Amino acid sequence: MQDFTGQAGALYEGIRDLPIVSPHGHCDPAWFATDAPFANPASLLVVPDHYVFRMLYSQGVSLADLGVGVPGQGADPRAVFRLFAAHWHLFLGTPSRFWISYVLAQTLGIDTPLSAQTADAIYEQIADKLAQPAFRPRALFDQFGIEVLATTDGALDDLAHHQTIAASDWPGRVIPTFRPDGVLDPSDPEFLVNITHLGAITGEDIGTFDGYLTALRARRAMFKACGATATDHAIEVVHTQWLDAPDDVFQRVQQGTATPADAAAFYGHMLIEMAQMSVEDGLVMQIHGGSRRNTNAAVMAQYGRDKGADIPIAVDWVRGLDALLNRVGNTPGLTIILFTLDETTYARELAPMAGHWPCLRIGPPWWFHDSTAGIARYFDQVVETAGYHNLAGFNDDTRAFLSIPARHDMWRRGVALHLEQQVTRGVFDMTDARELAPLLATDLARGAYKVAT
Amino acid sequence: MQDFTGQAGALYEGIRDLPIVSPHGHCDPAWFATDAPFANPASLLVVPDHYVFRMLYSQGVSLADLGVGVPGQGADPRAVFRLFAAHWHLFLGTPSRFWISYVLAQTLGIDTPLSAQTADAIYEQIADKLAQPAFRPRALFDQFGIEVLATTDGALDDLAHHQTIAASDWPGRVIPTFRPDGVLDPSDPEFLVNITHLGAITGEDIGTFDGYLTALRARRAMFKACGATATDHAIEVVHTQWLDAPDDVFQRVQQGTATPADAAAFYGHMLIEMAQMSVEDGLVMQIHGGSRRNTNAAVMAQYGRDKGADIPIAVDWVRGLDALLNRVGNTPGLTIILFTLDETTYARELAPMAGHWPCLRIGPPWWFHDSTAGIARYFDQVVETAGYHNLAGFNDDTRAFLSIPARHDMWRRGVALHLEQQVTRGVFDMTDARELAPLLATDLARGAYKVAT
Amino acid sequence: MQDFTGQAGALYEGIRDLPIVSPHGHCDPAWFATDAPFANPASLLVVPDHYVFRMLYSQGVSLADLGVGVPGQGADPRAVFRLFAAHWHLFLGTPSRFWISYVLAQTLGIDTPLSAQTADAIYEQIADKLAQPAFRPRALFDQFGIEVLATTDGALDDLAHHQTIAASDWPGRVIPTFRPDGVLDPSDPEFLVNITHLGAITGEDIGTFDGYLTALRARRAMFKACGATATDHAIEVVHTQWLDAPDDVFQRVQQGTATPADAAAFYGHMLIEMAQMSVEDGLVMQIHGGSRRNTNAAVMAQYGRDKGADIPIAVDWVRGLDALLNRVGNTPGLTIILFTLDETTYARELAPMAGHWPCLRIGPPWWFHDSTAGIARYFDQVVETAGYHNLAGFNDDTRAFLSIPARHDMWRRGVALHLEQQVTRGVFDMTDARELAPLLATDLARGAYKVAT
Repeated sequence: MQDFTGQAGALYEGIRDLPIVSPHGHCDPAWFATDAPFANPASLLVVPDHYVFRMLYSQGVSLADLGVGVPGQGADPRAVFRLFAAHWHLFLGTPSRFWISYVLAQTLGIDTPLSAQTADAIYEQIADKLAQPAFRPRALFDQFGIEVLATTDGALDDLAHHQTIAASDWPGRVIPTFRPDGVLDPSDPEFLVNITHLGAITGEDIGTFDGYLTALRARRAMFKACGATATDHAIEVVHTQWLDAPDDVFQRVQQGTATPADAAAFYGHMLIEMAQMSVEDGLVMQIHGGSRRNTNAAVMAQYGRDKGADIPIAVDWVRGLDALLNRVGNTPGLTIILFTLDETTYARELAPMAGHWPCLRIGPPWWFHDSTAGIARYFDQVVETAGYHNLAGFNDDTRAFLSIPARHDMWRRGVALHLEQQVTRGVFDMTDARELAPLLATDLARGAYKVAT
Repeated sequence: MQDFTGQAGALYEGIRDLPIVSPHGHCDPAWFATDAPFANPASLLVVPDHYVFRMLYSQGVSLADLGVGVPGQGADPRAVFRLFAAHWHLFLGTPSRFWISYVLAQTLGIDTPLSAQTADAIYEQIADKLAQPAFRPRALFDQFGIEVLATTDGALDDLAHHQTIAASDWPGRVIPTFRPDGVLDPSDPEFLVNITHLGAITGEDIGTFDGYLTALRARRAMFKACGATATDHAIEVVHTQWLDAPDDVFQRVQQGTATPADAAAFYGHMLIEMAQMSVEDGLVMQIHGGSRRNTNAAVMAQYGRDKGADIPIAVDWVRGLDALLNRVGNTPGLTIILFTLDETTYARELAPMAGHWPCLRIGPPWWFHDSTAGIARYFDQVVETAGYHNLAGFNDDTRAFLSIPARHDMWRRGVALHLEQQVTRGVFDMTDARELAPLLATDLARGAYKVAT
Repeated sequence: MQDFTGQAGALYEGIRDLPIVSPHGHCDPAWFATDAPFANPASLLVVPDHYVFRMLYSQGVSLADLGVGVPGQGADPRAVFRLFAAHWHLFLGTPSRFWISYVLAQTLGIDTPLSAQTADAIYEQIADKLAQPAFRPRALFDQFGIEVLATTDGALDDLAHHQTIAASDWPGRVIPTFRPDGVLDPSDPEFLVNITHLGAITGEDIGTFDGYLTALRARRAMFKACGATATDHAIEVVHTQWLDAPDDVFQRVQQGTATPADAAAFYGHMLIEMAQMSVEDGLVMQIHGGSRRNTNAAVMAQYGRDKGADIPIAVDWVRGLDALLNRVGNTPGLTIILFTLDETTYARELAPMAGHWPCLRIGPPWWFHDSTAGIARYFDQVVETAGYHNLAGFNDDTRAFLSIPARHDMWRRGVALHLEQQVTRGVFDMTDARELAPLLATDLARGAYKVAT
C-alpha cells in the first residue's frame, strides 16, 4: 500500500476513518441473522470469490480442486487454501491482491507474506481467529464501522433473515434490495415458475397483466417495509420500450408462444414499469448494464452461475434508455443510478446524460474497474461533464464481507489522489478539495440511495 | 488556474498572448453589426449557455426559473443570476467553472468569489461594465485580440449582418460559415419548406435535382463572397453513399413518398455532393458527427432546441465516410475536418485515417471534451499516429462570446502541458516544442481553415 | 530518447540487453537465406515502410515519387530518400521518428540530424555501411542478439528460404508462421485458385471438405517440421460459428453459388477448425482482428495492398469468439493470442476474457498502438483484470528489420516506466518489479509462443 504524503495524504487522513456506507452489495443476510462463525479460511476467502478463482482457472488450475461448485464439494479446505497461496504471484497488479493483503494484514493480523510455504501456517492462524467472538459477522460489522449495509435479494425472497436481524437486539443496519430480474425477463428459463411463485406469495392473479403489476407492487412494498431503499436490475443489453398493449405480449409469454423479440420488448417495457413504480414508492432504481453472463457453457453446466465467465460487452445507454427517460426522466424525486462495464460510455454517454436528466446519477466504477487505475479513469472521464453532484458515491458491490473495508479504503485513496491532482492542476483549491472528499467518501452515497439517517 | 513553472510555463508564456484565431463558433453576427451593449449579466452569461443550465437542470433547477426559452421569458434577470450563483458549487471540476471564473476575473474585473451572498453585488458590477463603451461587442473583440471570428449560418441566411460589418469602418474580421443541414436532410420536418425557400432566394428551379444543386452552388458562392472559407455539417449518424440516380429519390422526397431509408440515402449522397462542391470552390468541409439532438422530448416541446439534451453516440467514421472518401479523398487541395464526441475514435479511426488520406484533418476536442482532461486525452490518443500536421489546431465553438479568451487559454495551457510531457518523455526536445507550440495555438488553424492573411 | 533515472532506470538497465525474442513479424526469410547486402537506404528504410509513406501521403506527397509500388519503380533512391528527409518534421511525436532515429544513431552510426540539407550525405553514409559485411542480414541478426525470429508465410509457401537457412551453417533461428487466410476465406477473390493450389501441393482431393481439411493438416505439419510454433489469422470482422454441415457450404463455394453470408459462415467455421487443429498439433493460434484492409480503392488499384490505408474498426471479441471458445476454450495446452486495434476492448473484453479462459493470452499493443503512449494505455487497461501472466509479452510485428532493436527498446522502456509507476503507487515493491521486468521483456513471449529453448 502506498504511503501518502502531502496533499493527498492530508485528504486521505480526513476521510480514512469515516463510517462505511455500503448501499449495494451481495453479502448474505444469514451471516448477520445467525451470527455463526465463518466456517474456514478457504470457504471465506477463496471459494466464493470469483475474482480469485477465475484468475487461477485462467492459468490452468481446476475449479474442482479449488472447492468450487458441486464438483468441488469434497475438496479439503486446507488444500484449497494451499493451492491458492501457491498461485499468489498471479495476482500481482490486480485489486484482488490489494484487497486480500489488506484483509490478511489489517483485519486478520497476519504478518507473514503469503506463499506456498506459509499457506498452512497462515491457514491455522486465520482459523484460530475465525473461532473467536471478535470475528463473528456482527462483531466484524461493528468493528468495520458499517453505518448501513444493503444486500441484494430476489423478488421472491421471504426476507426472513432481514426480519430476524430487525427483531434482534443488535443495532446493525442491514437492509434488502429488490432484485426482480427473474420475474421481469421472459427469456429467463425459470420465468413462468417464478411468476407463478410470485402470484402464490402475494395472493394476486398473475394470469392478467394488471394482477402481475399488483403482485410486483406488493413485493416492493414488502421490501420497503423491511428497510429497502432501492431496487437493482442486471441487464445484458440495455433496452427499454413502451408497449401500448403489454398484456397481449404477457399472454403470449404465458402461453409459450412469445418470440425472442416479444421477450425483449416485454422486458424493456417492464423496466419502464419499474421506473414508474419507483416514482410511486420512492425506491431508488439501479441499473447494472452490459454484463454477458455465463459465457462459458461447460463451466456453467458443471459449476453453475457466477463462476468468472461473465464478460462485459459494449453498451448503448443513449438509445437503450430513451423510452424510459422520455417517460419518467423529468419527474422530481426519482433517482436512477447507472453502472457500466463499458468505460467508453463514461465520457460519451453517462456524464452528458447525468449532466442533463434530473433523475440520473452515475454509479461508481463497477466490478473489473473497481481498482486503482479504474477509479482514476472514472474520475478523469466523468467529472468534467457531470460534476461531482451527479455521482452516486461509492459502493463495494461485494459478497466478500471481509474485503469491505479494503474496498472502501481503495476508493478513499483514489478520491484523495484525484482531488490532489485537481488541486495541482489548479482546477480548485484545497478548501474545495476538503469539502469534496467526504462528499465522495460517504455523503453522495447517503443521498443518492436515500439511506441518510 | 494553475501557475505554470518550468518548461510548461516557458512554453505557455510563448503562446499565451498570440492572436485568437477562431475559425468555428456560434457567435451572433448581429452583435458586431449593431455593436449594441449586451443587455444584462443573466442574458449574457447564463440564459444562452447550455453548459450552464443543463447542469442546474440535472440537479432539479427549473429551466423556466433560469429564464430559458419561452417559459422563461418573464424571468427577472437578477433572480436568474442569483439562482445560478446559488448553485455555483455544482460546477466544481467542470470547464464551465474555469471559463466563467476567467471571464469574471480577467474580462470583467470581479474580484469577489461568486456565491448566493455575493450574487446581487456582482450582478450590479457586471451590469455597470456592460454599459461602458469598452464592453461593447466590437471593443471586446478588439481587446481579445481576435484575428478572425467565424460564425455559423444557415444556408438560407441573407448574411445581412456580415454585409453590415464588412461595409462598416470597423476592421474586425467576422466571416460566415455555410451550414446547409436544413436543406440537405429530408428527415428534417422543415426540409420541403427550406428547399422551396432555397429556390426562391436563388431563382433556381428546385423541382429538379440539377436545379437544386445549382441553387446550392449559388448559396455557397454567396457565402464565399461574404468571406466564408468553410462549410459545416452536423450529422447524428455518419453515413455517406453515392446514388446513381439521386433525382429519383429527390422526386420521392418532394412528393412525400420517400421512406426513412430514402431520406438517409439522399442525405448520405448530398454529403458527397457537398464534398465535390468543396473540390470546386475550395471551401473547407467540417463534419461534426455523432451528437443525438434533443433527446428529451418534453424539454424540446417546451423549450426548443439546444437545451442541454444533445447526447453523444458511438460513431463509425471508417464505414461512414467510405463512399465519400473513395470519391474525393485523394483530390489535392480538398480539406475535410472531422470532429468527434466519441473519443474511442481518436486512436482507432481518426488518427489512422488522417494519417493516410490527404484531405483529412482532425478537429480539436469538441464540446464535452474541450476541457483540461479532454485535451490531454486528445493529444495522448491522436499524435502518435497522426502526428501534429494532420490536426486542425483549436477552435472554441462557442456562442458565449465573453468566454472565447478563456477557452483559447485553456487550450494553450493544455498544449504547454502536453509538449512539456513529450519533452520529459524524450519524444523531442525543447527546440521542437517551441516550434510546435505556436503551430498548435494558431498556425494549424490558420492553415486548415484557409484563413491566413 | 529519455534518460531514465531512479527506479525506472534501474529496471530498464536490468532488461535492456536481454536477447530479442521476436515470435511474430514480417521480415523476408530470403534476407537470411541469401544473406545478400541490402540494396540501398531508400529501399531499406523508406519504400517498404507503410508507417513512413502513409504519413507523407497524408500531407500530399506522391507515393510514386516515394518509389512505392509499380508506379514508383523508376524512382531514384537518392531522390526518394531526399523527399523523405525533407518531411522528417512530420514525424515529430510518432513512434516512427523514435525507431528511425534509433536505427540511424545506434545501428548505422549516423550522428548528423536528418534534414533536407543532410539527406544526400546521410544517404551516402548509409550506403557505405550497407556494403560492409557487418551490415548484411545475418551479421545484423547476430549483432542484434536475436534469439528467435518468426516470419509470416502464406499457407502455400514452399518454405524454401527457411529450408536454406536450416541447411546452412549459420546458427540463427528463423522460423515460419502458418498464415492460412487465403485458403480459409471464401470472400478472397483468389480463394478457389488458392485451394486448387493447396490440393496440388499436398496431393489431396480438395473437392471434398474432408480432403480440404487433410490438405490443411498437411501444410501445418510441413510448417511445424520447418520450425513453426504458431499460426496467424488476420480477420476484419471477428466472427466464429460452428456449422453442422460445412461440406454443403464448401460445395456451394466451389460451385460459385455461395452467398456472402455463406462465405462469412464458412470462414467463421474454419477458424474453429484451425483452433481444433491447434489442439491436435500444438501450434499457437494468433488472431489479429479488426483491421479493415485497403480502404482507399484508388491507392489499392494503383499501388496494391499494404499501402497505409488499412484502418481499424470496432471489434466485438465476446460474441465474435463465443462459438470458438465454447468448442475448444477449456482444452488444456491450447494457446490463442488475441491482438486488437480497438483499445476499448482491452479493459472491457480482452482482460476479462483472458482472466477466465485458460487458452487465451492478450497480445502486446499492435500496430498504431506500439508506441510510448500506446504501451502505457495497454498496461493501464489490461493488468488489473488479467494480471501479467495472461499477457503474451512483446512482439515487434515488423517488416522493417533494422527497426527490431528499436521496437524492443521502446517496449522495454515502457515496461520500466509502467513498473516504476506500480511501485510508486504501492501496488507492489521493487523486488516484485525486478521479477516482472524480464518476464515482460522476454519470458512471457517465450512461453506463450512455445519458443523457449
